[in-house]
Amino acid sequence: MSNAGQVIKCKAAVAWEAGKPLSIEEVEVAPPQKHEVRVKILFTSLCHTDVYFWEAKGQNPLFPRIFGHEAGGVVESVGEGVTDLKPGDHVLPIFTGECKECPHCLSEESNMCDLLRINTDRGGMIHDGKPRFSKDGKAIYHFLGTSTFSEYTVLHAGQVAKINPEAPLDKVCVLSCGMSTGFGATVNVAKPKKGQSVAVFGLGAVGLAAAEGARVSGASRIIGIDLNPNRFEEAKKFGCTEFVNPKDHDKPVQEVIAAMTGGGVDRSVECTGSIQAMISAFECVHDGWGVAVLVGVPSKDDAFKTSPVNFLNERTLKGTFFGNYKPRSDIPGVVEKYMKKELELDKFITHSVPFAEINKAFDYMLAGEGLRCVVRMDA
Amino acid sequence: MSNAGQVIKCKAAVAWEAGKPLSIEEVEVAPPQKHEVRVKILFTSLCHTDVYFWEAKGQNPLFPRIFGHEAGGVVESVGEGVTDLKPGDHVLPIFTGECKECPHCLSEESNMCDLLRINTDRGGMIHDGKPRFSKDGKAIYHFLGTSTFSEYTVLHAGQVAKINPEAPLDKVCVLSCGMSTGFGATVNVAKPKKGQSVAVFGLGAVGLAAAEGARVSGASRIIGIDLNPNRFEEAKKFGCTEFVNPKDHDKPVQEVIAAMTGGGVDRSVECTGSIQAMISAFECVHDGWGVAVLVGVPSKDDAFKTSPVNFLNERTLKGTFFGNYKPRSDIPGVVEKYMKKELELDKFITHSVPFAEINKAFDYMLAGEGLRCVVRMDA
Ligand SMILES: NC(=O)c1ccc[n+]([C@@H]2O[C@H](COP(=O)([O-])OP(=O)(O)OC[C@H]3O[C@@H](n4cnc5c(N)ncnc54)[C@H](O)[C@@H]3O)[C@@H](O)[C@H]2O)c1
Ligand SMILES: NC(=O)c1ccc[n+]([C@@H]2O[C@H](COP(=O)([O-])OP(=O)(O)OC[C@H]3O[C@@H](n4cnc5c(N)ncnc54)[C@H](O)[C@@H]3O)[C@@H](O)[C@H]2O)c1
Ligand SMILES: [Zn+2]
Ligand SMILES: [Zn+2]
Ligand SMILES: [Zn+2]
Ligand SMILES: [Zn+2]
Repeated sequence: MSNAGQVIKCKAAVAWEAGKPLSIEEVEVAPPQKHEVRVKILFTSLCHTDVYFWEAKGQNPLFPRIFGHEAGGVVESVGEGVTDLKPGDHVLPIFTGECKECPHCLSEESNMCDLLRINTDRGGMIHDGKPRFSKDGKAIYHFLGTSTFSEYTVLHAGQVAKINPEAPLDKVCVLSCGMSTGFGATVNVAKPKKGQSVAVFGLGAVGLAAAEGARVSGASRIIGIDLNPNRFEEAKKFGCTEFVNPKDHDKPVQEVIAAMTGGGVDRSVECTGSIQAMISAFECVHDGWGVAVLVGVPSKDDAFKTSPVNFLNERTLKGTFFGNYKPRSDIPGVVEKYMKKELELDKFITHSVPFAEINKAFDYMLAGEGLRCVVRMDA
Repeated sequence: MSNAGQVIKCKAAVAWEAGKPLSIEEVEVAPPQKHEVRVKILFTSLCHTDVYFWEAKGQNPLFPRIFGHEAGGVVESVGEGVTDLKPGDHVLPIFTGECKECPHCLSEESNMCDLLRINTDRGGMIHDGKPRFSKDGKAIYHFLGTSTFSEYTVLHAGQVAKINPEAPLDKVCVLSCGMSTGFGATVNVAKPKKGQSVAVFGLGAVGLAAAEGARVSGASRIIGIDLNPNRFEEAKKFGCTEFVNPKDHDKPVQEVIAAMTGGGVDRSVECTGSIQAMISAFECVHDGWGVAVLVGVPSKDDAFKTSPVNFLNERTLKGTFFGNYKPRSDIPGVVEKYMKKELELDKFITHSVPFAEINKAFDYMLAGEGLRCVVRMDA
């Protein structure tokens, strides 16, 4: 019997307070409204952004809240006006959407949809401002419009990428955020040519996905830069051929890299969030043709500062959001790349836990252990 | 009778001291050495860079010197090893060269030749470090390897663009520097698509050439920005459709432009040399797809400073040198554009004087009158 139009009762991992372990509760999930879909989540993984907003140290606290934005699932029911999704479709929820109508969606170059661009402060749905989650009549806030730490969740249809039903959701779920961000930063924005050198600043999950993009692009040298030497061993699996720890040198790391590469790398991708790394990532690219791409999310008051001559000497600086992928138009194609073995994902998944143990995923991340922990909702 | 291999005596405008009027003198011009050519200059125009180094206020003084780098002429004789130029060829001297062998010349993207990149401090030829000019046995320094304020000059063959002999040298001479720089900054680097909006900061000769590039590209709106309202009338001839004087507004000019354009222009080109204008030019482009291009030469200690979030919101910042044209490979094609009327040059030439009155060209430029003054060497 279909639940369409009915409230669903299911389990969700609710964050009642900042920094406190999530608690698995039975919650009510209202039916999808206009332009919304309700999705049964099968797998979800944890990303730093969940942790940042759960800790709510620099961020606006909004509790109780259901976190989670990297996931894979199946459409359960659709609301009014939803024509391109139907129950049974396999989907990836995405933290930023694609309305297909605004100037950004109509531009070939942008994925920063005016309507559905990431909004970390919004706790309800766009349609009526209200959450679809509740427990005993008390509303529970959404996170990024995805809230995938729940057996069922409601999303705006513009935040749902319909993918190949044969793709294993326990693997491709990590394409919802970090892996696509890093991989896309390299292949869509930095665009190294075959044989070029690429520097990757920050060897977390996003940086390693950027390195994977460099490997797939046929880069001749992939130089990994991190302050934490523990990252280097793992990074070898992701194609990094050389490593630089800025702490090992007296000179600024951009000068170290320039000396290693006869004047600079061809491309660099910054995946740290550190303003100093952003400046180094720009200044380490070769004059004449070098392109640097910023991915990391900086602190609020950071200022990017460099000599304008570095630009005049024909260096390019770009930034990217979600690897410049349009969520609905492009992510299905990235899933296909995985299916055709043009892109490796399995090596990013270092842990897996049943839903009941979701707090372990937080522990792993806080301890800096591994890259992605996939949570099995059915287990 | 050919002068090949002989010293030529001819007239040149010699700068004996910083800031003092040039004096027309008879000088000796030695024959071209290995990889050099001697060129009979027919027309030369004055650019700000000549004036800066003649004033030598911030720059290294190097006197006596023969200035001049925008010009058109005919090859008189060639030195050893020069195979692709012969006497009679029509050429434009270029202040930066193309050796066709270094990594920059081999890269499709760069025009910053390792061997022949602009060098404002060099007073002699690369081959032996010595000047080819002298008067009564006393050496006279070269400028930018071009020194076109002389009836004959010697250049490295890599700094000579061979052009269509039918092109009128009194017009295309201005393509040696400023016009190509501004035009190329738009068409090669900013690359506006048909119908896009373009902001041009600084409406001097370079900025107006950037506006011409926008016009030729089919820009829908060309917004000219200058602190000097006198520039606006002239700029209309160059396709500028709107004007903003930052002095007329309390808000930063980037906010004024964003308000005029629903969030920002599609492309901007900075042609001022002011660091504040560089920052505004970057911050006034639309998120998602905007591209800003820096052209102006900043002061030595200027720092470019902006929030990194402006990059993360998918804005691109580039700089260019000589409009990204490779001097020998590309400039002949720009001359062809003029011949095919795809690019207008005549409107840049606001004055013309005989060689004997070359100091008038300095007076016009110092007074901010007009754009280019062409000096007729034969007159
Ligand atoms: N733009 C987007 O769409 C998007 C999406 C997801 C994540 N991100 C951002 O990407 C960044 C990386 O994410 P992650 O999950 O891989 O983070 P992470 O914390 O796992 O990895 C960051 C790595 O950078 C290293 N690092 C920090 N400062 C450094 C410095 N100055 N020099 C060299 N290395 C340095 C750290 O040691 C760490 O290994 C974060 O800022 C995150 O917010 C952006
Ligand atoms: N990159 C290259 O290859 C190359 C080649 C030639 C010239 N240039 C540089 O291009 C720049 C422009 O050259 P030009 O000959 O047209 O100079 P110019 O002096 O004729 O014109 C510059 C204009 O910018 C305006 N301006 C100055 N500060 C401003 C500000 N903050 N906001 C708005 N407008 C401002 C001035 O009023 C002036 O009209 C110079 O810096 C020059 O050195 C670069
Ligand atoms: Zn949109
Ligand atoms: Zn994420
Ligand atoms: Zn070269
Ligand atoms: Zn010039």
